[in-house]
Amino acid sequence: MPIISINENGFLDKLKGTNGLFSCVISSIETTKYVGISGVNKSVIDYTPAADMELVTIGESLSLNHPPIDATGCPSPATITRAAVDILKIPVMTVDAGSYIKPKIPYISVDQRPTGDIQKGLGMDNSKELLNLGKIIGNNNIYDSLVIGESVPGGTTTALGVLLGLGYDARDKISSGSVENPKDLKLSVVESGLKNSKSKDVFDVLNAVGDKMMPVVAGMAISAVSKGKPVLLAGGTQMASVLAAIKEISPKILKSGLLGISTTEFVLNDKNADLKDIIEQIGDIPLYASKFGYENSKIDGLKAYCNGSVKEGVGAGGIATYCYSNGLNPKDIREYVEKNYEIWYSKLIQ
Amino acid sequence: MPIISINENGFLDKLKGTNGLFSCVISSIETTKYVGISGVNKSVIDYTPAADMELVTIGESLSLNHPPIDATGCPSPATITRAAVDILKIPVMTVDAGSYIKPKIPYISVDQRPTGDIQKGLGMDNSKELLNLGKIIGNNNIYDSLVIGESVPGGTTTALGVLLGLGYDARDKISSGSVENPKDLKLSVVESGLKNSKSKDVFDVLNAVGDKMMPVVAGMAISAVSKGKPVLLAGGTQMASVLAAIKEISPKILKSGLLGISTTEFVLNDKNADLKDIIEQIGDIPLYASKFGYENSKIDGLKAYCNGSVKEGVGAGGIATYCYSNGLNPKDIREYVEKNYEIWYSKLIQ
Repeated sequence: MPIISINENGFLDKLKGTNGLFSCVISSIETTKYVGISGVNKSVIDYTPAADMELVTIGESLSLNHPPIDATGCPSPATITRAAVDILKIPVMTVDAGSYIKPKIPYISVDQRPTGDIQKGLGMDNSKELLNLGKIIGNNNIYDSLVIGESVPGGTTTALGVLLGLGYDARDKISSGSVENPKDLKLSVVESGLKNSKSKDVFDVLNAVGDKMMPVVAGMAISAVSKGKPVLLAGGTQMASVLAAIKEISPKILKSGLLGISTTEFVLNDKNADLKDIIEQIGDIPLYASKFGYENSKIDGLKAYCNGSVKEGVGAGGIATYCYSNGLNPKDIREYVEKNYEIWYSKLIQ
Repeated sequence: MPIISINENGFLDKLKGTNGLFSCVISSIETTKYVGISGVNKSVIDYTPAADMELVTIGESLSLNHPPIDATGCPSPATITRAAVDILKIPVMTVDAGSYIKPKIPYISVDQRPTGDIQKGLGMDNSKELLNLGKIIGNNNIYDSLVIGESVPGGTTTALGVLLGLGYDARDKISSGSVENPKDLKLSVVESGLKNSKSKDVFDVLNAVGDKMMPVVAGMAISAVSKGKPVLLAGGTQMASVLAAIKEISPKILKSGLLGISTTEFVLNDKNADLKDIIEQIGDIPLYASKFGYENSKIDGLKAYCNGSVKEGVGAGGIATYCYSNGLNPKDIREYVEKNYEIWYSKLIQ
């Protein structure tokens, strides 16, 4: 099976044969300007969310010469997401919750300003409003099922902050987008930020150390599930923090049987993290991980995923799970990425 | 029948029982800052598109104290649109093509900057790009049918400009959003602008005297029809200009049987205009007009529609046609507007 299933409750069947909408919520975080919490290549970090979503939506990155790469030269997980949505012709909805650089494709704007400095506990001041805007988005689109991903450089640190702030044991269980996970640095950033959280209330915690993607995704998921539509949170640690926020805001959503979370095998198997344990602390929710067979790839940058580079992002794991539930297999995605790799990265390779 | 049909070809049947998506594309026009071409109340003109779409989407205007009114105090046609989408729970997608004030609800951003000064022939420089962004929107949403309206103060003047620029006899046939239609003023504005059009090519004409709503709606309609989905252009004169642009860009779209245009009875019956003639000049396209029974209303501001105030906008006529094709009747809309009128305008009435 191309999907690893943990705590499966029949959720995957609900995705089968549905008109699925893929949405990706993007944001930038001010803290990444001066603390090395993100594995994304420094020179392109501001452009990464925009370039990711351009690639996913139209098949090329417009805001950069080529699709984003990490600091070691590995291709963005957006390459996987592009393969998935293009093969099955899944509509893509980009939601901007404060990316420094705006995508050169149509995107839904909910907040133009980036997430602030989480080290100072100043992530945002409007998490409640962003939740409501997310709900409006969930209510104003037609779909049978909703897959929601993110592209937020530095986002595993905000995830750590929100999980700790809400009382979860997450200290040594958070994954990262790079081989070397700067755990101590991330921890010192969020512990500093949490000192400035007004209370342990979910909105105060989000305002202090969260990123703007989180309340927006929470709102979208809550309104979609409330309408009886299955929602797949497409991500690892970051979507775990959204799940924890949803539990605080609307606990019945977690018991609906309409919510699942899916990531990649690279995150689930990350020995320096423990996503499974985090999810189990939050609730009785099915957790999936998509396989890609990248160990068989002839491209070094893809093989590197198996050794801990990149791992996940832009909803790659979740949208693959949706596609595998609808007839695709890992070979389809891998071959699509391999076939397009040279075109996408021709300007890098030269 | 609550719908007046001209040149009906079975199009209305294609709307029946569909999952319809209502989209409204908004823009501001710089020229309205210093020339009185719009019937919208001067003090609120910059806020009108945002406040209209807030009302339609969530039932209240956030950017203004109350929903927009025209210079004589008549309520915005967004009140009709709100009634229609709320009664039938139709999803609403706002597209910002350069409104001065951005809506406080989620909206799709395609261009943050307003339409420029059409009197100088400087409406925009990116009509071709906006067409492509519109196509991407049409391709990245799930719907069975698409109803597209607009909120562009000053938009009948850009419509006049584009129709004249493309060679149509429209000089004395353009409607307006007010009782007194300043036709000579509008004509002098667009004749001045057209002198600066590079050529009679549709993109040059749009760039000179069009507004940014037009290429975006054209792109959305072209991509939707290309996917086999029926599209109702919801408006009068302004949508006629979009229709003329579509004919230049992709003539086969007009022959698909999947395109219709619908306005209100107030525009169709406007003795100072001739929409029917303009549409017939463009092509063999069904034209509809929705009735509202406002002559029976106890509210003066609604009765005034019958005497030529406001007449149309925010897709009111078209979304009503969609609703009437799906079981609603004018009484449903009228009673909804009357019931909510005091709540919406309580701060005005006081």
